[in-house]
This record gives sequence, C-alpha cells and structure tokens, in this order.
Amino acid sequence: MSWLPIPSDSDFTLANIPFGVFRHPITGTGHPAIAIGEHLLDLHVFSTHGGFSQLPEMVEHLEVFKQPTLNAFAALGQKTHRAVRAYLQQVLTADSPLAAVLQYDETLQKQVLFSQDAVEMLLPMEVGDYTDFYAGRTHAFNVGCLFRGTDNALQKNYEQLPVGYHGRASSVVISGTPIMRPNGQTAEGVMEKCKRLDLELEMAAFVARGNKLGEPMSVVQARENLFGFALMNDWSARDIQAFEYVPLGPFTSKNFGTTISSWIVLPCALENFKALPLQRTSTIPVQKYLLDPEEKSVYDIALTVEINGATLTKTSSKNLLWSFPQMLAHHTVTGCNMRTGDLLGSGTISGEGVGEAGCLLEATKGGKEPVALGGVQRTWLQDGDEVVIKGFCGEGETRVGWGECKGVILPALDI
Amino acid sequence: MSWLPIPSDSDFTLANIPFGVFRHPITGTGHPAIAIGEHLLDLHVFSTHGGFSQLPEMVEHLEVFKQPTLNAFAALGQKTHRAVRAYLQQVLTADSPLAAVLQYDETLQKQVLFSQDAVEMLLPMEVGDYTDFYAGRTHAFNVGCLFRGTDNALQKNYEQLPVGYHGRASSVVISGTPIMRPNGQTAEGVMEKCKRLDLELEMAAFVARGNKLGEPMSVVQARENLFGFALMNDWSARDIQAFEYVPLGPFTSKNFGTTISSWIVLPCALENFKALPLQRTSTIPVQKYLLDPEEKSVYDIALTVEINGATLTKTSSKNLLWSFPQMLAHHTVTGCNMRTGDLLGSGTISGEGVGEAGCLLEATKGGKEPVALGGVQRTWLQDGDEVVIKGFCGEGETRVGWGECKGVILPALDI
Repeated sequence: MSWLPIPSDSDFTLANIPFGVFRHPITGTGHPAIAIGEHLLDLHVFSTHGGFSQLPEMVEHLEVFKQPTLNAFAALGQKTHRAVRAYLQQVLTADSPLAAVLQYDETLQKQVLFSQDAVEMLLPMEVGDYTDFYAGRTHAFNVGCLFRGTDNALQKNYEQLPVGYHGRASSVVISGTPIMRPNGQTAEGVMEKCKRLDLELEMAAFVARGNKLGEPMSVVQARENLFGFALMNDWSARDIQAFEYVPLGPFTSKNFGTTISSWIVLPCALENFKALPLQRTSTIPVQKYLLDPEEKSVYDIALTVEINGATLTKTSSKNLLWSFPQMLAHHTVTGCNMRTGDLLGSGTISGEGVGEAGCLLEATKGGKEPVALGGVQRTWLQDGDEVVIKGFCGEGETRVGWGECKGVILPALDI
Repeated sequence: MSWLPIPSDSDFTLANIPFGVFRHPITGTGHPAIAIGEHLLDLHVFSTHGGFSQLPEMVEHLEVFKQPTLNAFAALGQKTHRAVRAYLQQVLTADSPLAAVLQYDETLQKQVLFSQDAVEMLLPMEVGDYTDFYAGRTHAFNVGCLFRGTDNALQKNYEQLPVGYHGRASSVVISGTPIMRPNGQTAEGVMEKCKRLDLELEMAAFVARGNKLGEPMSVVQARENLFGFALMNDWSARDIQAFEYVPLGPFTSKNFGTTISSWIVLPCALENFKALPLQRTSTIPVQKYLLDPEEKSVYDIALTVEINGATLTKTSSKNLLWSFPQMLAHHTVTGCNMRTGDLLGSGTISGEGVGEAGCLLEATKGGKEPVALGGVQRTWLQDGDEVVIKGFCGEGETRVGWGECKGVILPALDI
C-alpha cells in the first residue's frame, strides 16, 4: 500500500507506474514524470534532489530525466525501465525499505508531487515516424464488408502479414487537444466540410530502440525494443477518405490529427493481463519471421469509448490478430530502420457483439443505422462532441490503466 | 565569371549556388555548404571568419550555419535564402564589389573551399515527415493501364487533387548510400528475395516553413514556404508492393530506402526554367484551394536515369500535372501541419515517348518487355547495379543542376 492516498478506482496504482511528460509550472518546460493516484511525480526534480541515489544503475543516466521528452529514457532499454519502475514502487510503498527517500521528506514532496488536475500534460515522446496498422480483424472484416461485400471483406494479404501504412507524425497530439473538423473533397467537383467525421479506438506502442537500415528485427527483438503502450484515437474523415484513398491509401483524411493518451504504460506492468490473439482462419502458415514465440501475445485490456459521457463502445484489446512485436518485426522485414520514439497504432479495435464497434463507421453500418447515445440518435461526430477513450485491466490495487484519451470537435473553417 | 575555375559542363555555376551539408574532415560533423564548380564552400567556417560581415541581414543569424543540417537556415525564409545566394554569387564573381571577401584571401580559401571529390556529403535536412505524391500523369496512367486496363487507368480523384501518401522519413538516405535488396512476402505463402526491384525517377521539395495544425496553406503561401528542390529515387519492390498494398497503400515495399541528391537548388535559381504543367483532360474545374496563380507552375528540367552508365530514361520534370505548391496546399487542406524539413516527392516522372519511362515497371511493361541497356537486356534491377539520376537546365554559364542522385544495389540477406 502506498503512503499516498490512491482512490479505489484509480488507474494509477502502485502496480502501474506509467510514464509521461508534464509542463512544469515554474520552468515552463516538459519534465518526465510518473503517475501515482491523483498525483504525478516529477522525475527531473526528483533526480536532481537525490531521488535516485539508491538506484546505482540510474545514477549515471540521470540526464535522461532532464530532457523534455521520454526518448532518452526509452533508449536506455527495458531492463532499466523495469528497474526504475520497481524502484519507484518501493519509494511510494508505505514503510518500505526505500520509503525514507520521499515518505518522510515533506519538503521534497512539495517539490516533486503535483496534482494531475493542476498541470498540463505534453506529448511524452518526440515521434520520428508514425505507422498505423490494421490488426483489428473484426474492424477490417466489418469495413471490408461495407466496401467490398462479405465474400471479399478480407483481402488475401490480411492473415499473412500485418497490413499497415505510414501515418503523419507531425499531427500526433496529446489527449485534450481539440480537433478541428476538416474541409476536403468528397467527390468530383465537391469541396465541403467533412460530414462523416469518425473516431477510431486504437492501442498504440512506442519504440524504445530501433534497428539499422537493412537489418530487420525478429519478433523476439521487437518485443524487447518496445517502450510502452498508449491509448489512441485515429480520427478519420470517412467521406474525404472514400474519394482520396485509391490507389495509394488514406492521406488527408487521416493527417489532421491523431490523439494519444498522456500516459505510457510499460510492458512489465501488463505482464499479468496477457491474452491469446484472435485466431486465424487461413490454412496457409504464418511466415517464420512473423512467428510470435509467446502464445499469449496480446493484452486483455478493457477499452471504452464515450461520446459526451454516453458509452458507444465496450470491448477488449485482445481483438487483435497480430501482436505489436509482430507488427514491428514486419515493419522492418524489408530493412526499414526504426528509431526511438516511433509510434505504432494497432488499427481500430472492435469486438463482434453489439456495442463493441471501435468506430462509428462500423457502429452505424456506414451511417445507415444511427446508434442511441444518451437519449439521442447519432451517426457521425458533431461539432462540440467530446470523445473519450478509456482503458484499464485488473481491479483495486492491481488495476493498471491509462486515464483517458480525449478530444473535442471544433467546427470547420468556413471555405 | 567566377575567379574559381568552373568546368564548362558543370551543374554548379554561379547561376546555381545549391545548398548541402558535408562532413568536415577535421570536426567530423556536418557543416552547411554551397557547391561551386568542383568545389564546395563551407558556410560554417566562412561565417565564423567574417565571410558574411558585408551582408548585414545575415549577421544576426549566423548560428544557422553552425547547425549540422540546413533546417535552421531554411526556416529563415525565402527572402533570406535569396539574399544569401545573391551575396555568395557576388563573393564568387571575379573582381566584383564583394570579391575581396575571398578572392584574394588565400588563407581563408584554404579553410573554406574543399574539393567535392574529397569530402563526404550528408543528409542536408532533418526530415520530419516525408510524403510522396503521384503527380506524374503519364506514370499514373501507364501504371493504371497495367493494373486496371486503359479505361480505368486514372481514378476519379486523379485530376481533382494531387494523390499522395505518407512515406517513411527514417529511411531517406543521401546519394551514394547503398540500397539492400529486400526480402518480403510476394503472395500467400511466399517469402522471398525481391525479384522486381525498381527505381523511380522523382523530383523532391523541402519545406522551409510550416503551418499550424488546423490552418491550411494557400497555393501562394505554399510556394513561399518551399526551401528548394532535390532529385529523388524512390526505390520500389514491385512484387512485395503488389501483395501488400490493398487496401491501405504501399508500405514495406517502399520503406527500405529513398535516395535524395546531396544538393538542394533554390526556387530562385530555377526562375528562368518554368514551364506549363500537363493539361488536365477532366471538364470538372479544379477546386479553388488548388488553383495555382502561376500559369508556368512546374519546371522544365532535363532528367536522366542511367543504369551502369547506360541511359534508361531521358525526360523532363514538366511532365507533372500538379505543381509542388499545389501538392503542399492540398497536403494541408484538412489542417495537417507541415514543419521545416518536411520532404515532398513528386511521384515518378515519365514522358510519353520511348525511352522516357521513369521506372522499369513502365519501361518493361511490367517486366514483359526487356529494355536494351548497354548491350544487355534488362527487366528489373540486379545486384551490383548502379542507378544514377541526373538533372539540369540551362547551359554553359546559366546551367543549373543537381549533380547526381546515386545508389548501388546490394544483395539481399539470406533468409
């Protein structure tokens, strides 16, 4: 039990210790931090006041906490991330051997502990490249049915490799950033405000360590090279997408904003919540470079989408056909070099049941069947809508979650 | 005329003054430079030895030449770029009012002038995001014929907007970097070394100044926000691409390497070589946000592709349907934010005649009709092939060119 009060439904228990970056109210710059209960712990100031003096392996690396992003910390590798998390768990545990570091030092507490409500969170990583996959099989099937009919819903490559495409890194924004409805072309001769604005419920992973150009990563290496996981909303302008996407894929319909959660949860915090991925239906074996030695290769995280407080979606992150290590290995198979801070999206996560659709395109059958949301019928996102994605697993003291990934829709510019 | 000897067929005349970055043989770090004849001029060392003391508007910005990339210089804007180019033209002109800065100072010359042959060139810009367009109409039509037949070769969006997709920034490499043949999946159950390795002849543009998320750029603003142009080879694994690209576009078939030329030519150096873009055939008008007020909106640059010294392609960059300012304006229409250093590719540039194809896919009709190259028949790229793209316009003292954009194919890893 922590000496800090942790609400019973908190995502930020001692079992979690997720990493993020907040704007320090005095320096005005980004400081790395971890979340605990309703607080965060400033790792920069903590490290400059001897906070890590009892963790010898970090003492020579404390400059990583002076950076305005987590990239330098991520690049230290999973062994160090695990050690720092375990150390902070001890520091925050009541009357533990390390409690003296902070529990009885009220002066230091005032310098390093902040109420999360009182500070602004910043983008936790500098994203070099952002890639979005399409590993949610139910989503891919449902969308395929809408566009190509049931028989051709999944294309031949779908169960052979993690389908993905390069996204736009510059417009990745932190939870809470408003999203402006885009203008765009939706048909020949038609320029208009997007009428089919959608959300996409995704999980995301950040790369801790990359590979050299020409030297692919194995799945085992890829798992070791992940830093942690975030919630993601890959906003989509469906009408613009439908017109622009042939033959090279989505472009301006996706690059106006991608929201990620403020907090990044380490793989070691999710170790107890592993699950089997969705089963393949193809009889053609998976290529060797994509075999994941871990049978339980995905996570069972409860995911929800709320629009203006009404629940649109309840599902689980186990609805993926491919694991993040498989996605990362595939990303490098032709030799592509990954870098610290690169962001991978899972693709939209949907379950098969009613109320399990990870986007409005699926939930409304392409806008044809409105869904009831808090007493109103709804097809696409309206101006002023607040979309909140939440995710957690475990309960009580074992609960591990992300808080929320939020965005409000602003009206389009007049054109 | 310059006081430095400039060979009669040099791309790097006084009329050019292109910008790049080389590795300084003593400091070992990247120094910004310009090319002149067979030399380059180190802008970092030149600036620290009073080289710009007679250009008052640069004196307060000299720190930009201490950076290992041109991003900070680019961010100063076109007015400054033009002033620096004009100033350096004067400095390098024999017995000009500014010749005294360098012409008679042999000590300074030894510190700032290097033979291009003697130094290593580095990536000139730090690329935030890389986007590849598809603005070469003949290429799009020819590839469309191969995949969908003549009647449906160009899709409905093609003449309404610049089709493009997000590429991979991490694997953008400088001319001379070897390219390793990739391994990948080419069909269900088939993992192999790429058999259909191709080049793509493209022009590229770097962004000097970006825009805020949600605030699109007009075509006029986009033209002012370009830094300069490079040659580009967008290597492609055609067999991997054909299997992976539905429904989200090319991915691993493109992200193993994209080569750009060492030198970036400023728009002001190309002012005399403007040309009309290809004519649209559609009767549906172009949307207002895409109207380019400049009738001559593309350039007439002579482009060639050589494989092992034999000419595969001779064409011109005027074979584009959309100008770079139009591409950039479209990129931001839904609100996407651009950043200094972002890279835009034109898409493959092909002419309509024999010997004008910008890639082997077109030149060989999908590999069915080998082309004669230096006495051998050739369909796709072989290990050891050296591909060189060249580009220039004008002649003699008005010649403006890029030197070359080169890559050699290394054998694939054994899988």
